[in-house]
Amino acid sequence: MLDLRAYLAEGAKAVEAALDALLPAADREPRRLHQAMRYSVFGGGKRLRPTLCLAACELVGGDRESVLPVAAALEMVHTYSLIHDDLPCMDDDALRRGRPTCHVAFGEATAMLAGDALLTQAFAALGEWAAQGTGPAAVAVRVIGEIARGAGSFGMVGGQALDLAAEGQERSLLELEAIHRLKTGALFGAALRAGAIAGGAGGTELAAIERYAAEFGLAFQIRDDILDVVGDQARLGKPVRSDLRKQKATYPAVVGLERARILAGEAADRATAALDVFSPGRAEPLRALARLAVSREN
Amino acid sequence: MLDLRAYLAEGAKAVEAALDALLPAADREPRRLHQAMRYSVFGGGKRLRPTLCLAACELVGGDRESVLPVAAALEMVHTYSLIHDDLPCMDDDALRRGRPTCHVAFGEATAMLAGDALLTQAFAALGEWAAQGTGPAAVAVRVIGEIARGAGSFGMVGGQALDLAAEGQERSLLELEAIHRLKTGALFGAALRAGAIAGGAGGTELAAIERYAAEFGLAFQIRDDILDVVGDQARLGKPVRSDLRKQKATYPAVVGLERARILAGEAADRATAALDVFSPGRAEPLRALARLAVSREN
Repeated sequence: MLDLRAYLAEGAKAVEAALDALLPAADREPRRLHQAMRYSVFGGGKRLRPTLCLAACELVGGDRESVLPVAAALEMVHTYSLIHDDLPCMDDDALRRGRPTCHVAFGEATAMLAGDALLTQAFAALGEWAAQGTGPAAVAVRVIGEIARGAGSFGMVGGQALDLAAEGQERSLLELEAIHRLKTGALFGAALRAGAIAGGAGGTELAAIERYAAEFGLAFQIRDDILDVVGDQARLGKPVRSDLRKQKATYPAVVGLERARILAGEAADRATAALDVFSPGRAEPLRALARLAVSREN
Repeated sequence: MLDLRAYLAEGAKAVEAALDALLPAADREPRRLHQAMRYSVFGGGKRLRPTLCLAACELVGGDRESVLPVAAALEMVHTYSLIHDDLPCMDDDALRRGRPTCHVAFGEATAMLAGDALLTQAFAALGEWAAQGTGPAAVAVRVIGEIARGAGSFGMVGGQALDLAAEGQERSLLELEAIHRLKTGALFGAALRAGAIAGGAGGTELAAIERYAAEFGLAFQIRDDILDVVGDQARLGKPVRSDLRKQKATYPAVVGLERARILAGEAADRATAALDVFSPGRAEPLRALARLAVSREN
């Protein structure tokens, strides 16, 4: 039986070491910019996207060490999106992971540039990985493409734009799902596909991972919406009821809390089932992560 | 004798066709985001970075058609930097190329996301180019690395951060040059190196192009500072004297207008001389571009 807590801790440690190696040192100029980048990256995240990337790589028999720079790049992309999302012109949040958000700590201009620099550094790290990597450059190029598409206007940024347009508006459950599929689902999907491709996945394996990714993303997002209603601010590290205050369309708001819990559980079950093509031993980490997505308290 | 005006027009036309093909259509969701991206990209820029990229490719005997997606990606990176630079938390400029800036036209949040999406789309386009390109994937990976480094915290974004820190402060000429070398010089350099590498440049050729890039960037920046003092707002398409109002360190402010003109001319001469290792015919476009950098009125 997999010890998920140990698995997560070990993954996070490896990813954080890779991030430390790939991010500019805080004492190199421009220092304030580099400090802001590191402040947000080393702010105690769950490292979920890199963990999904590593797990997908190992699921198809790949070597997790070789894919660490890819995992780290995904966390840089995720962190940049949080920094920009927290800015006054977006969600205007002052608290993230229990600490002042980047713009509260460093000012708006530096926070925006820190986000820009993290996104750019992600691709610089991917370029370096592709140039020095053990695998063929053509595979590395596919990985870069997956991450760029997942993060772009038909992926994560597109979801942020749709989310923005939806604020204060009535949305159907279908419209809601479309927003979340992009806003959070696309980068989860990119993380899983990138890890699998780097690990040498074939077409059937990749198709199964894509089904897992879609259901995992849905389960994760519904749980996120639920935690905004029932969560504990101290454990979450961010203000609760913020969706409600901003009149954001959420699952509990549209279908009610109980139905939202059921939908989340069903999505996690479908994610788990999608991995049936793999040996149970290899699939265990991703299955445990799907269960965690709907049981987590932060 | 090269007809520089025709050369520039032809290059811009090819780059704009590539941009149109590589950017999401304006009627695809999220429409407002894609409209904002296209609004800023097709706002009448000089397409200088892509032109430098194409010229460097041809300088070393490469095929300009094959490098058009790289040139287009450079323009996306440049446009994103302008959008973010114009935002209220940065320079707070309302006018760019004679039109309202992106945030004035689309709102701050959409403008920030449009910048984010353009930067991401640049790497998506580069990834696609690398995957489908005619050249070896390893060369494409080097090109991606050059652009990511040129745009990042030791390049363009780093320069924006240093510029921000320098506002309202006394700066020496050396400090000034260090800022501009990053803020504008790094992406010029990346454009030239990326074009040359994609075109198959050897080590000696690349070294000469790097010397050209450094001097070109310096010449361009000094002229920019001069135009802020003596330029015509209608021709520039942006407010003049804005550096002065913001107490920005500029060449005319530090060394005076006449000495600034001399320094610009000397830098352009050194840029021209750096190309002596190439045949005069092939070097002509980049030589003409160096002269243009210090004679331009916008």
